[in-house]
Amino acid sequence: MSRPTAAFSATLEVELAHEPGTLGRLCTAIGDVGGNIRSLRGFTVTGGSLREEVVVDAASEAHVEDICEAVDGLEGVKVISAVDRTFKIHEGGKLETISRIPLRDADDLSMAYTPGVARVCMAIHHDEAASHELTIRKNTVAIVSDGTAVLGLGDIGPAAAMPVMEGKALLFKEFADVDAFPICLDVDTPEEIIETVIRLAPTFGGINLEDIAAPGAFEVEARLREALDIPVFHDDQHGTAVVALAALENAVRITGKEFKDLRCVILGAGAAGVACAKILLGRGIGDVVVCDRKGTIYPGREDMNTAKEWIAENTNRDQISGTVAEAMAGADVFMGLSGPGLITRDDVAAMADKPIVFAMANPDPEILPEEIGDIAAVVATGRSDYPNQINNVLAFPGIFRGAFDASAADITEGMKIAAASAIAAAVSSDDLAPDLIIPTAFDRSVVPAVSSAVAAAAKEDGVTRSSIKNPLGGA
Amino acid sequence: MSRPTAAFSATLEVELAHEPGTLGRLCTAIGDVGGNIRSLRGFTVTGGSLREEVVVDAASEAHVEDICEAVDGLEGVKVISAVDRTFKIHEGGKLETISRIPLRDADDLSMAYTPGVARVCMAIHHDEAASHELTIRKNTVAIVSDGTAVLGLGDIGPAAAMPVMEGKALLFKEFADVDAFPICLDVDTPEEIIETVIRLAPTFGGINLEDIAAPGAFEVEARLREALDIPVFHDDQHGTAVVALAALENAVRITGKEFKDLRCVILGAGAAGVACAKILLGRGIGDVVVCDRKGTIYPGREDMNTAKEWIAENTNRDQISGTVAEAMAGADVFMGLSGPGLITRDDVAAMADKPIVFAMANPDPEILPEEIGDIAAVVATGRSDYPNQINNVLAFPGIFRGAFDASAADITEGMKIAAASAIAAAVSSDDLAPDLIIPTAFDRSVVPAVSSAVAAAAKEDGVTRSSIKNPLGGA
Repeated sequence: MSRPTAAFSATLEVELAHEPGTLGRLCTAIGDVGGNIRSLRGFTVTGGSLREEVVVDAASEAHVEDICEAVDGLEGVKVISAVDRTFKIHEGGKLETISRIPLRDADDLSMAYTPGVARVCMAIHHDEAASHELTIRKNTVAIVSDGTAVLGLGDIGPAAAMPVMEGKALLFKEFADVDAFPICLDVDTPEEIIETVIRLAPTFGGINLEDIAAPGAFEVEARLREALDIPVFHDDQHGTAVVALAALENAVRITGKEFKDLRCVILGAGAAGVACAKILLGRGIGDVVVCDRKGTIYPGREDMNTAKEWIAENTNRDQISGTVAEAMAGADVFMGLSGPGLITRDDVAAMADKPIVFAMANPDPEILPEEIGDIAAVVATGRSDYPNQINNVLAFPGIFRGAFDASAADITEGMKIAAASAIAAAVSSDDLAPDLIIPTAFDRSVVPAVSSAVAAAAKEDGVTRSSIKNPLGGA
Repeated sequence: MSRPTAAFSATLEVELAHEPGTLGRLCTAIGDVGGNIRSLRGFTVTGGSLREEVVVDAASEAHVEDICEAVDGLEGVKVISAVDRTFKIHEGGKLETISRIPLRDADDLSMAYTPGVARVCMAIHHDEAASHELTIRKNTVAIVSDGTAVLGLGDIGPAAAMPVMEGKALLFKEFADVDAFPICLDVDTPEEIIETVIRLAPTFGGINLEDIAAPGAFEVEARLREALDIPVFHDDQHGTAVVALAALENAVRITGKEFKDLRCVILGAGAAGVACAKILLGRGIGDVVVCDRKGTIYPGREDMNTAKEWIAENTNRDQISGTVAEAMAGADVFMGLSGPGLITRDDVAAMADKPIVFAMANPDPEILPEEIGDIAAVVATGRSDYPNQINNVLAFPGIFRGAFDASAADITEGMKIAAASAIAAAVSSDDLAPDLIIPTAFDRSVVPAVSSAVAAAAKEDGVTRSSIKNPLGGA
C-alpha cells in the first residue's frame, strides 16, 4: 500500500464515551489500519460523552473507508461523519476575483467605472499598447486547456480539467504574484483552440497552454506564438524542459563531465520529451537520442509526426536504430518522460561511467531510485517523496513574472535557458550533492532569481515591448 | 462648464515657500478657476519650503491643465507634478485573482493540486453537473463584450473595452460577492461571439453580455440562452429594463394610476428600448408605443430588423404612425433610451394627467429635469447628479447572486420581474416621493432583497438545476 498522504485525508467527526481508554482505542485502531493522524481538535469534557474531530491521512479512498470501519463500533466510539478534505476545499472553486482598488463611495466608482473609465478606454482605443499598462493584461495569464491530456488522466474534457487549471492559477499567484485565470475550452480540434485563443487575446497579457494532447499542442503553441504579440508558453513542454535542464546542469557539475560531451537518451516523444530535446540542443549538449514506444527516432523511420520529423533531423547523430536499451548503452544521461517501469537496472549498468538518470514519469517513474542507487551517480524523479524532484512549479511562475516585468512580447529559448541557469544556481556549491541537485518547490529564493534572469534575457533577445516599438519610432 | 468631479480629479504635488499667505494664494487660485479641493495631505514645516499634496476635482482634462497653470508661478508656489487619479487607479488593471483556500505547505498543495486534484477531476468527468459545485463555475460570471457599443463611445474594440468590463467585475464582487471576469473578444460577427462563448462555457457559471451592438446583441443572447445550460443575461437590455420597471412601479404608486391602464411611449429601439418594451408587456402594461429615429414602429413600416418586427407585432395597439411627439400626446409614461434633447417641454405638456418621464439617455438626457419639474409628476434620468437615477447596478449583481444561490440554469422573465418588484419594494412607503422612487446604488438592502426574490422565482419557474434534473431521475 502507498503511504498515507494529505491528498486522501479525511476529517472524522466521532462521538466518544467519556470512559478511560476510549481515546486510546480510537487512536490505536486508526494506527493499526495504517491511518496517520494529522490533527486532533482537542476537547474538555462536560458530560458523559464528547465530540472529537480527527483528521487522518490515508492512502486511498478505500483506505478512508477502512479506517472508518475500524473505528466505528469500537467500544464507546461512534463515527458521526467523514468528510473528504480534498473535495471539501474544492467546494465553490479555488479562486476568487477581487478588486485591487478601493470602492468606498460614488466618487471611487466614478473613477473605476462610469464616467471616468471612458477616458481610459479612449486612451487604449488610440494606442492599444496602453492596454498592457492600464488593464489586467499587465499581470494576467490565461491558463488554457481543452482537457485532452490532463495529468495522467487522459482526455477527460474541459469541465473536468478545471480543478487542475484553478490549482495552477493558485501556484502562479502564490509563488510569483502573477494573476492567472483558467480557460477551459469545449473544442474539437487544435485549430479551434488557436482560433479561440486569438479571439481572447485582448483580455490577457500571456497564454499558458496546459494539458493539451500532443502532437496538436505543438501546432497550437507554434501558431499562437506566431499570431500573438504576448508571451505564449506550453508548460507541459517547456516547464519540464527548463527544470530538467536546471537539474542536469547541477548533475553534470557533480560528475565532473562537460556538457558539450554528453550523450542523452530521452524516452518519450510527447510534449515534454520533444521540448527536453530542444532545450538540451539549444544549451549545446553533445548529442540527444529520442525514443518513443517504437524505439529510437531517426530519419526515414515509420510512425512519425511533424515533431518527430524535427527530432529525426536534429538529433541522433549516429543514426542509432533500435530499442531504448540499445540507445542507452554508453550514454551519459537518461531522461524518462514516458511510463512506469520502462527501463531496467541492466540498462543503467550499460550506460557510461557515472550515469545520470532522470526517471520523470508520473506518478510511477521509469525505474525506482532504490533499484539503481548504487550504480547511478545522480537520480531524479517527478515525485515529491524522493530527493531531486523535477517539478515545473520551479519554472513557470518565475518565467511569466520575468516576462511581465520586462514587458516581453514572447518567451524565447534564451529566456528558458536563463531560467534553467537561475534554478540551477539556486542550489549553492556547499549544498550541491547527488541527492540535492535542484531546489524544493517551496524555496522562495527561486522565483526572484528566475524572474530577473528571464527579464534580462528578454532584453538581450530584443523581445520587450519597448525594444520592439522603438525601431518604428514609437515610445 | 460641468461640475468638477472625482472622474477628472488630479493629485498635484506642489512646492510652497514657507511664507505667510502662500497656502492661501494656492487655495484661492484653485477655487478661482473652479477647481474643488478634495483633500490636502497636511504638513509640518521644518525648512524654508514644503511639499504639499493637493487632490483637486476638475470638470475636464483641460480644466486640470487650467488649474495647474493658475497655480504654477503664483508667488512662492511651484507645481512639481500633476497625476490624473483615474488613470492612476487603472495602472496594472483593477482586478486580481486570489486563492480561496490556504496554501501553506506541500500537503495543502497535494490537495489543491496534484495528486489530490485528480480525484476531483474524475468526479466531474463522471458527472459534469458536479463542476457547478467543485469549480469556480459555482460563483463566476464571464462579462463578455466585443467592444462594439461601449458606453456612449461606440465601436472602440475589445482591448479598449477592458476597463469597463473590469469595472463591471468590481461591481459584481463589491455588491453581491459574485466573482466576475472580463472576456473581451476580438471577433468580427455576432456568430463568432456565439461560437466563442459556447466554447468558453465549461469555465463559467454564467454569462453577462455587455456593450455588444444591437441588433446583433439580440441574436447573441437568444442563441446563447438556447445553447447553454447556464444563465445568460444581456445587461444593456435587461439590467436597464428591470430598474426602469422598478422605478415605474413606484412612480405609478405616486400617481395613483393602475399599471394595466398605462400607455407608455419608448424612444429608442436599441437593446435597452426593446427590453423595456418586453418587460412592461410581461408585467401587464396597457400599451407600449416604441419609436426610433424614423418615428413610431408599426407593422409594415420600412427600416425594420428582427427586433423591430417583434415590436411591431406586439405593441402599438392603435397602430399610431408618426413622430415621437405625436405618440406622446395623451400617453401616461415616456421612457427615453435614445439621445440628448430629443423631446420638448411641449411634448410632455401634451401627455396625459400626471405624466411620468424617464429620460435615461446618458450622459445627456432626452430632456433636462429642470425643464419639466413643474408639469411632470415624476422625472427620472440615468444620471447620479439628479434624483431618481435609473442605474442597472441595482439589478445585475442581485440577479446573478439569486441565480447562483438557486443553481438556476436560466434567467427567466419571471426572475427579472421579481427583481424589479424587490428593487421597488426597497423604497419604503414612508420614503416614497416624486424625487425618491428608486433606491440609491449604494443601498446595501437591495442585493439581498433582489437575490432572494430572484432565487424564489427561479424555483417557481422550474429552472433550477435540481428541478431540471429530477424528471430525468438524477439527483
